[in-house]
Amino acid sequence: MLNYAPDLGRVFQALADPGRRLMVERLSRGPASVSELGRPLDMSLAAALQHVQVLEASGLVRSQKAGRTRTCTINPAALRSAEDWIAGRRTMVEHRLDRLGEYLAQAAGQPDSAGATEPGGTTSEHEEPQ
Amino acid sequence: MLNYAPDLGRVFQALADPGRRLMVERLSRGPASVSELGRPLDMSLAAALQHVQVLEASGLVRSQKAGRTRTCTINPAALRSAEDWIAGRRTMVEHRLDRLGEYLAQAAGQPDSAGATEPGGTTSEHEEPQ
Repeated sequence: MLNYAPDLGRVFQALADPGRRLMVERLSRGPASVSELGRPLDMSLAAALQHVQVLEASGLVRSQKAGRTRTCTINPAALRSAEDWIAGRRTMVEHRLDRLGEYLAQAAGQPDSAGATEPGGTTSEHEEPQ
Repeated sequence: MLNYAPDLGRVFQALADPGRRLMVERLSRGPASVSELGRPLDMSLAAALQHVQVLEASGLVRSQKAGRTRTCTINPAALRSAEDWIAGRRTMVEHRLDRLGEYLAQAAGQPDSAGATEPGGTTSEHEEPQ
């Protein structure tokens, strides 16, 4: 039932590993071969290739083989899809907190309103707690 | 050796699961109990609690128990840290591609420049391929 943006899951899974994040960081500065990506991580070519395959499966990275060298490039669209998902949620939270702040400020500014000094109190304007 | 933003790894790991993303989505609209979070996912309270614990360990979610009910809230700062990391990499990629585009446009606009018709050619101005 959870057919919910499956590619996004792969992107976040790919970014969960610190070694793969270093690879993404390196590739954001320009294309690199698999061995160049593995070198600063002190890993074998086979291990580096496995990480590159996870990055490719997520859509974050594309690679092309020429002779014996596989060159990797980053796909900014995949980064943007993950960024947009997080930004959408964060914006929703912040707007909600802003509205709550405005409500509390308004309640505090009404000295004749009973119960207004108690944020989260049970005045009739207060939203039902979820 | 990979002591590289370990919390970020936990945040991305937490977001890699579609059920946990639905929980984050729900919490971005307001606080919810563990059972409320598990209901749309058709999972047991124990399973929902496990997911909540992963979200809490990452810093994305905070929870507080009152009586028999554990109420969860989202932490926008953790969302922002993940968003900022991705945005930083994406911006770097896009600036680099913009500079490359400008270089190619400039090269195409110089009809007397030898080799300028071949993007990625070996003119002396061209950067060393990485």
